[in-house]
Amino acid sequence: MRTADQYLESLRDERTVYYRGERVPDVTRHPVIGVAARHAAIDYELADDSRYRDLAVVSDRDGEYSRYYQIPKTSDDLLKRSALIELATATGGTLVVLIKEIGSDALVALMRVASALDAKYGSSYARRVDEFYQHCRGNDLAVAVAQTDVKGDRSLGPAAQSDPDLYVRIVERRSDGIVVRGAKAHTSVSTNANELIVLPTRAMGEADREYAVSFAVPIATPGLILLASAYDSTGPQSSVVERPISARHKMMETTTVFEDVFVPWERVFLAGEYEFAGPLALAFVEHHRFTAVSYKLPLVDALVGSAMLMADLNGIARAGHVREKLVQLVSYAETLRGLTRYAALRSAPRELGIFVPDPLYVNIAKYHFAHGYHEAVRNVQDIAGGSLVTGPGAEDLAVPETAARYERFYAGRTGVSGKDRLKALSFVRDLVASEFGTYQEVLAVHAEGSLEAEKLMLFRSYDARPALEFVRRLAGLA
Amino acid sequence: MRTADQYLESLRDERTVYYRGERVPDVTRHPVIGVAARHAAIDYELADDSRYRDLAVVSDRDGEYSRYYQIPKTSDDLLKRSALIELATATGGTLVVLIKEIGSDALVALMRVASALDAKYGSSYARRVDEFYQHCRGNDLAVAVAQTDVKGDRSLGPAAQSDPDLYVRIVERRSDGIVVRGAKAHTSVSTNANELIVLPTRAMGEADREYAVSFAVPIATPGLILLASAYDSTGPQSSVVERPISARHKMMETTTVFEDVFVPWERVFLAGEYEFAGPLALAFVEHHRFTAVSYKLPLVDALVGSAMLMADLNGIARAGHVREKLVQLVSYAETLRGLTRYAALRSAPRELGIFVPDPLYVNIAKYHFAHGYHEAVRNVQDIAGGSLVTGPGAEDLAVPETAARYERFYAGRTGVSGKDRLKALSFVRDLVASEFGTYQEVLAVHAEGSLEAEKLMLFRSYDARPALEFVRRLAGLA
Amino acid sequence: MRTADQYLESLRDERTVYYRGERVPDVTRHPVIGVAARHAAIDYELADDSRYRDLAVVSDRDGEYSRYYQIPKTSDDLLKRSALIELATATGGTLVVLIKEIGSDALVALMRVASALDAKYGSSYARRVDEFYQHCRGNDLAVAVAQTDVKGDRSLGPAAQSDPDLYVRIVERRSDGIVVRGAKAHTSVSTNANELIVLPTRAMGEADREYAVSFAVPIATPGLILLASAYDSTGPQSSVVERPISARHKMMETTTVFEDVFVPWERVFLAGEYEFAGPLALAFVEHHRFTAVSYKLPLVDALVGSAMLMADLNGIARAGHVREKLVQLVSYAETLRGLTRYAALRSAPRELGIFVPDPLYVNIAKYHFAHGYHEAVRNVQDIAGGSLVTGPGAEDLAVPETAARYERFYAGRTGVSGKDRLKALSFVRDLVASEFGTYQEVLAVHAEGSLEAEKLMLFRSYDARPALEFVRRLAGLA
Amino acid sequence: MRTADQYLESLRDERTVYYRGERVPDVTRHPVIGVAARHAAIDYELADDSRYRDLAVVSDRDGEYSRYYQIPKTSDDLLKRSALIELATATGGTLVVLIKEIGSDALVALMRVASALDAKYGSSYARRVDEFYQHCRGNDLAVAVAQTDVKGDRSLGPAAQSDPDLYVRIVERRSDGIVVRGAKAHTSVSTNANELIVLPTRAMGEADREYAVSFAVPIATPGLILLASAYDSTGPQSSVVERPISARHKMMETTTVFEDVFVPWERVFLAGEYEFAGPLALAFVEHHRFTAVSYKLPLVDALVGSAMLMADLNGIARAGHVREKLVQLVSYAETLRGLTRYAALRSAPRELGIFVPDPLYVNIAKYHFAHGYHEAVRNVQDIAGGSLVTGPGAEDLAVPETAARYERFYAGRTGVSGKDRLKALSFVRDLVASEFGTYQEVLAVHAEGSLEAEKLMLFRSYDARPALEFVRRLAGLA
Repeated sequence: MRTADQYLESLRDERTVYYRGERVPDVTRHPVIGVAARHAAIDYELADDSRYRDLAVVSDRDGEYSRYYQIPKTSDDLLKRSALIELATATGGTLVVLIKEIGSDALVALMRVASALDAKYGSSYARRVDEFYQHCRGNDLAVAVAQTDVKGDRSLGPAAQSDPDLYVRIVERRSDGIVVRGAKAHTSVSTNANELIVLPTRAMGEADREYAVSFAVPIATPGLILLASAYDSTGPQSSVVERPISARHKMMETTTVFEDVFVPWERVFLAGEYEFAGPLALAFVEHHRFTAVSYKLPLVDALVGSAMLMADLNGIARAGHVREKLVQLVSYAETLRGLTRYAALRSAPRELGIFVPDPLYVNIAKYHFAHGYHEAVRNVQDIAGGSLVTGPGAEDLAVPETAARYERFYAGRTGVSGKDRLKALSFVRDLVASEFGTYQEVLAVHAEGSLEAEKLMLFRSYDARPALEFVRRLAGLA
Repeated sequence: MRTADQYLESLRDERTVYYRGERVPDVTRHPVIGVAARHAAIDYELADDSRYRDLAVVSDRDGEYSRYYQIPKTSDDLLKRSALIELATATGGTLVVLIKEIGSDALVALMRVASALDAKYGSSYARRVDEFYQHCRGNDLAVAVAQTDVKGDRSLGPAAQSDPDLYVRIVERRSDGIVVRGAKAHTSVSTNANELIVLPTRAMGEADREYAVSFAVPIATPGLILLASAYDSTGPQSSVVERPISARHKMMETTTVFEDVFVPWERVFLAGEYEFAGPLALAFVEHHRFTAVSYKLPLVDALVGSAMLMADLNGIARAGHVREKLVQLVSYAETLRGLTRYAALRSAPRELGIFVPDPLYVNIAKYHFAHGYHEAVRNVQDIAGGSLVTGPGAEDLAVPETAARYERFYAGRTGVSGKDRLKALSFVRDLVASEFGTYQEVLAVHAEGSLEAEKLMLFRSYDARPALEFVRRLAGLA
Repeated sequence: MRTADQYLESLRDERTVYYRGERVPDVTRHPVIGVAARHAAIDYELADDSRYRDLAVVSDRDGEYSRYYQIPKTSDDLLKRSALIELATATGGTLVVLIKEIGSDALVALMRVASALDAKYGSSYARRVDEFYQHCRGNDLAVAVAQTDVKGDRSLGPAAQSDPDLYVRIVERRSDGIVVRGAKAHTSVSTNANELIVLPTRAMGEADREYAVSFAVPIATPGLILLASAYDSTGPQSSVVERPISARHKMMETTTVFEDVFVPWERVFLAGEYEFAGPLALAFVEHHRFTAVSYKLPLVDALVGSAMLMADLNGIARAGHVREKLVQLVSYAETLRGLTRYAALRSAPRELGIFVPDPLYVNIAKYHFAHGYHEAVRNVQDIAGGSLVTGPGAEDLAVPETAARYERFYAGRTGVSGKDRLKALSFVRDLVASEFGTYQEVLAVHAEGSLEAEKLMLFRSYDARPALEFVRRLAGLA
Repeated sequence: MRTADQYLESLRDERTVYYRGERVPDVTRHPVIGVAARHAAIDYELADDSRYRDLAVVSDRDGEYSRYYQIPKTSDDLLKRSALIELATATGGTLVVLIKEIGSDALVALMRVASALDAKYGSSYARRVDEFYQHCRGNDLAVAVAQTDVKGDRSLGPAAQSDPDLYVRIVERRSDGIVVRGAKAHTSVSTNANELIVLPTRAMGEADREYAVSFAVPIATPGLILLASAYDSTGPQSSVVERPISARHKMMETTTVFEDVFVPWERVFLAGEYEFAGPLALAFVEHHRFTAVSYKLPLVDALVGSAMLMADLNGIARAGHVREKLVQLVSYAETLRGLTRYAALRSAPRELGIFVPDPLYVNIAKYHFAHGYHEAVRNVQDIAGGSLVTGPGAEDLAVPETAARYERFYAGRTGVSGKDRLKALSFVRDLVASEFGTYQEVLAVHAEGSLEAEKLMLFRSYDARPALEFVRRLAGLA
């Protein structure tokens, strides 16, 4: 297993990354992407920390490896994976680390679908996937996943777009591999991963055959161009005094462009079997949305804790309306926790005995989180007070002339110094009233599937027969 | 164990029950209360039914007895109890049976508190409670619980009321027992129970000493007067064609008046130890609110099933807004189920090793149910259509002249006869657009604790330390 | 203008009305429909009451006539009409009277569309409508409107149904008139009206030509069969002590069957001009939905008043959560009032100079009312307490034995007798926890257009250009 | 009247402003505050623009002056004032200008209360206020208002704080004036105003006598120290390509410190008459909250327009769930508009004939806006898509290498270029997914009164008698 330093070292290669119009020579030393890389290193640090080793590392007949790469074969495996994700995200200051979380979700999804593909076509996808899995696990790699195509006209399918490259597609099939072209949006952690797994984004029809493609490539592959998002450039370049979270914790997304990228057959996991595009997309989501609800737990805990802390510091903890809002926040957070855990406890084996968390409860949990996030933020902002957006910057607190005045006039309830209240406000501001804060809002609504996607999957996962039979019986219908 | 007939026979005694101003000579033959008694008999019928015997009956070294009377010593005991409650309520057409459910909650609460009382006072409450428990279990009795006092001015405590009898109190202590006076409101199933357990309704102070009283008496005790509610007299006297649920299923409440009722010491479980009034009230609620979320499950399933059935019969199942409402209903119902089950899985032992469901999740579940019930009803009414309140009565469907026209013009989507759609509408009407329907609305808000009581207990059950420490650490506060 | 007695007398004719399978010989003497007829008479009583005459009666060069029949030509006309509807509904104990309200909405809609029809076809519809209008106004008639067809499969249009009579249609065109067949659902006040106006329910295509029909007939027309709803038979037959509203106030709906009904040409207002079916349906809704938001005002006021009264009687008016719920109720009610009045103030002239309330605000108001009604009911139930469904019947309060106990134990806060609190509870029960209460819930969702219909019309009435241009300009888009 | 340049010139004086620890020599040339000053100049530009002159300028016997300074004496005055505020805010890219809006609200409040003060004390406050009003109006000044004290322990009043300076107070009364000390929070536009009006923040008791103080001073007054907020430093220093709103529009808040500031008696408007502290605070709010709902209109319009624009560009305008969200947004925005206008139409004269908007509807409108803002933002974020937070920066779109790729892969529905969609996304990002976006969220909850303040005032403004009497009459209570 690798250390954090080995991980960071591994990122110094020929990868093509652009940030604000400039090619980035070394992502680990970049003022913004470097923060993201060091944040991602948490997944390596935890495995190296004796306090967390039991949780973070699995030891079995294959040797020691990261628990993220453990194929879940029991409910308890899923609970432990969830606990590790929760720990890593809490260590990451409420921001998911993701560097192993998402890749392992894609790998189990590929395993499940490859076995079905091979059964139908007599292909050898399962072996390829397994070899790639051994490669990732054995070398303790950081893996990104590109799924969402850039899509163009959302009302049209891949083949119906005016520009054929708005979904990633196979443009050439060669004896040694395929050549792919197109672009994916919102690829997380790709700037600081070792490998990139590409998955289809939706169900496809026969016309979309060349769009039904899945594969893996190293990030530093010729023709693979990562256009890093400029979003929230400020946080990572700020003082930790002013931005306690976002100055240290960052996740990068890229628009990921494939300019005739060659992929050898050994790394191709789907190539035209369009009827499996939907199942593969779905299998990934079945695992990844459980990962998602797990890593949202520290975020919602931070909302609850922030509201309770500020209510106390401001001297309003006993006000009826504050109590009401705290109850809403606790209920919001713990409903997410309860449903997440229950989904793991209700997991069931699928292809190859891989345990899949109950999709009904995972999707209810995810929808609950996503739908209620903004209201929870409003409650935290409400309790914290308007000072969230009218307070000092780091320099104000460093210069005696201004610091003394701020520290005096930001005093809270009796016994609470302005200094402490300013620290608390800085944290809460970064959490819910900053560019990082709105990033979390948009992620709530869009990441790991939209609100509508969650509703759809929730509905499909619900077995309506018992309720219908119950009602028909009571109504006297045959 | 008793049969349903034995149970019904046992109700024919000297009990004092009034219904609409008249003394009821035999509750089992009364046109309304008789329906309630036969509904309650379900708890006996299930135990007698070979399909359900394993769930409904426990067999251990003490012999065979109703599972309701099993003291929960594991999470699995709670899950099975919950499953039995769910089964009984489903058999009861969405209406809880309660005749053993509530009494057993009170008994375990009394056991827990009696052990603490004896530890403090060297009293023998534990023995008394146990003997009464053996009596109920051994004779397979139906037991009601009177907790909520009539209360008068809600902003004042028991001793501060202008009329001293607005909370039940001890008016005399004799060598052989106590004499109690006052009245309790909303006592469910008392008209058709064998025994009545009385519990205090709230925490009390020294001034309320004589109001800190708990005991049990047979229903047919002199001075115990049951004023039966006149609410929904119509349902039980209607045709099952018109009211498929409420014509067969009924729960009675009484205003329960104690006119100098004598209680022998053997049946007294609290008598002045006012500091235990709150803990006893709370212990009951800890168990009973879990019972409550368990018996709400068939009700919410019926809402989901009704909406799905009517969407299908009306030919609107594919409309976007209908799909949206079905998703809301599924999410509402299954969040309740998930949190209820998770609360049982998270149960922990308390006094005497009795397992208590996790009060945080129980109260979140109960609040979720109660807060969302009316919106769920709105969604069902919305999908079912205005015909809920403009349709025929039972006679209209019996007379050919009107029946033929109704059956023709109530046809639904292709393939759905008017006859079937009328049956479905009758059921859904009874469920959500009838006096029975509003009864369920009011129960949702008030029964087993109000919305505010649930929020309060939810908040108190929440361990805020982890969230606060997490936030303080991230904010850089000591 | 007619007196209430003249109105009631006019209902004693050959009309064919069935109630619970039996033909009703005289609707005014029927134990249920008679209540509805006397309730409807309010519209006549008000005109006869010197306190309200100025509001209820218009006097112009055509003489004196009911304000309901005044064609709105200014915003003030609409405000006065709204005020009269509000007054009549408040007099009706929160239940709309409707006997002139709905017919006059249909008449102005017919006037508007007839002028367009004549312009296109050179027909004489406008004259026919005007003559019928003069007939209604001059004779001060009570007029019902049948619009919603029974519809069968809601996903199919009129002509596509398996049974051709699921929408009302022309089956024969004769020299002297047309013959119509089919059935309409949910026709309000038809049992106790003089005339029935029939309108199409939706936009239609060429295939639906014979379904594009509008006309008026006297209620006592051969072949016109009214199947009266059996819903809430109990209220009108109850004691006013137990049901202060529904024992006195009732609205009847019918399934209205046309068995080859002949309509002379003079009474035909649309006969095959299918492209006007949609506009006519819409024009009616433009007026009638404003009528609807006007008559919902006393209902929402009663919710606010009930909650405030019960909060006071129970001694909880100062509790934080009660205050919060009262605020929600006030905000709910007054948002409806504000939007309703603003819609009238923003009205604008359309065909023939007829003023139409601003459909955007009318539909926002209606949707606001309909979407929030159940939550408002929940708040009232919450504050009123569980006694809503566990209290006495009328007989309990008449017999001294039970009355004395109830009156003692239902005492409220200091100074509030049980007698008064019982009266208040009876009223609130009838309003929000009775069959009448659920009737109002279902009406909220379905009457005068469903939630979805309101959203659709709201969206269509919104002029998106200013907001789009504003945003495009700020975004730098041409 | 002054030009924008004259206004900017007037800001170059001896004012003491700190920004990020540094004293600012010239606010108009500061990279951040300068943006705020130029934004504020809009109020001067509009008056100078012939298109808007009729709205922005009043001409009466006193000559020409800004409409902001017109004392409202009719409903129409209020409607015009509201329209001007709406226009200025729209011109300001959804951000209120405030530089005359807030000061004029304070001035009319002072006029109203001064007349009452003089009536009670025979003082000459009214004359002082009027002279200061003439000064502001005659010189066309920019005026800030400091109301909210820094407050310390929110559960304690001014005099009960451990530090006596946590509310602004009189520390010395001299023959020529008073000396004040303390600090106010959240003072908007003070960095770029000419005058500062100080108002008390709450009702006060006798112990708080020296905290009951109101006065006005020029910004460049010795001892007056403005600590400018560091919030959103990024926006004003960014490219307009990346931040179309916040690069050009900015409002500054300060923590406003009074270090023994001398105020001559002519500028003192309250000095110890503690029973008028509450009425003055309230009077200001009565006017300012109407100003607030007026300037929120362009913001909510921008939310609606953004959602509609993005739905169109993304090709999802016809999706059912998108339609539903657009309806919610339209309803949200237009309910605010309807209630705001209705509040003006329902205004009534108070002291000195000054028209006050109906506080019931103003507060319902404000609460509606504030409570629903986050949900509205969620809907916009939902429709706009995840690209809000994963897209390019300004440099990416300037460099051909990256620009070409972004422009290709950000194409929208057929006919929509990536270039246009990128522009739209930049705007929507700035509006709802940026530090400026969260600024608006926090303002929604806190500015011009918190959610709780609005609920309290709404409740107090409601005349409950009609609803209570209606209900009591129906219930048969005397």
